[in-house]
Amino acid sequence: MKFTNIIKRKNSAINFANKGLILENDINITNEYYINADIALIYKKPTPIKVVKVDYPSRSMVRIKDAFFETPSTLDYNGVYKGYYLDFDAKECNSKTSFPLSNIHSHQLKHMEKVIKHGGISFIIVRFNLLDKVYILFGEDISKFINENKRKSIPINYFEKKAYIVNLSYLPRLDYIKIIDRYIGGLKK
Amino acid sequence: MKFTNIIKRKNSAINFANKGLILENDINITNEYYINADIALIYKKPTPIKVVKVDYPSRSMVRIKDAFFETPSTLDYNGVYKGYYLDFDAKECNSKTSFPLSNIHSHQLKHMEKVIKHGGISFIIVRFNLLDKVYILFGEDISKFINENKRKSIPINYFEKKAYIVNLSYLPRLDYIKIIDRYIGGLKK
Repeated sequence: MKFTNIIKRKNSAINFANKGLILENDINITNEYYINADIALIYKKPTPIKVVKVDYPSRSMVRIKDAFFETPSTLDYNGVYKGYYLDFDAKECNSKTSFPLSNIHSHQLKHMEKVIKHGGISFIIVRFNLLDKVYILFGEDISKFINENKRKSIPINYFEKKAYIVNLSYLPRLDYIKIIDRYIGGLKK
Repeated sequence: MKFTNIIKRKNSAINFANKGLILENDINITNEYYINADIALIYKKPTPIKVVKVDYPSRSMVRIKDAFFETPSTLDYNGVYKGYYLDFDAKECNSKTSFPLSNIHSHQLKHMEKVIKHGGISFIIVRFNLLDKVYILFGEDISKFINENKRKSIPINYFEKKAYIVNLSYLPRLDYIKIIDRYIGGLKK
């Protein structure tokens, strides 16, 4: 398990280089580790598609012959950890100085607010590619920034103040649950 | 909202008749109601697909030209209600006397057990089409039945004893959250 994952990660890193999928791949293998080690149960949701045309090559088979990807109205990942509902997204950013808010759709922001309202934990994991840094910024701090500022991007110093650094390691690759533990520690439930 | 949903349901009932999608449609419009009324945040996950071939009709567009549906390893619905993680599936059944366990894949059973282990609430909503009855059976009772019996289907009297009837109404169509409330009431957390 350890080896295959590391190998998988290496291959993926090559395939995904410059495609903005390094973070996604790191989170996916971290989630796989969490599931196998019975730490948490978190999955990436499939991207929704709109099917236009299907074929039936045999009685019991459906083959999609025309379809397109739809914009998801929720976030990419959700699941359960210690009884808490987690709901989050992964975003890569190629600026050194700020995170453009255009990366988060307005319906995704509303979704984050609803998650929090219903007692879940919502956040984004942001990788600043050029700084080689990964941060977790919680939904509450995103809403706060948007409500108090008219800016179209969140400056890096807001991340330095409000977000939490996630360090890389071998296994788990991106141990973001550690940060969730600190968050839960500060919560009353 | 009320009217469009009822109309939508009627049309869908016609389209979906005999396709086993009546229950799914009822749950979807119930979830829509829960979201709009700020009661719970529960979504159906998109069915995972394996893409074989894509086209790029323009620079920013991807069109899927060959793909097939994959068997999901998790359950169809998940979300958050009063801070609790819910994870469940909807199953229709055309027998009057029992629910065939072949309707639940072994990886889905394992998934339900993991959800419970991590503090979530897992269940199936089963519609006995010929009896016109909808039941909620919780994961714990499914595991119990499987562990204590060698049978390939759960008899209807097990549902009568262990499951909870969900009554149909106009809005919400299938108010399953009521049953979850009773379940939570009996839980220590």
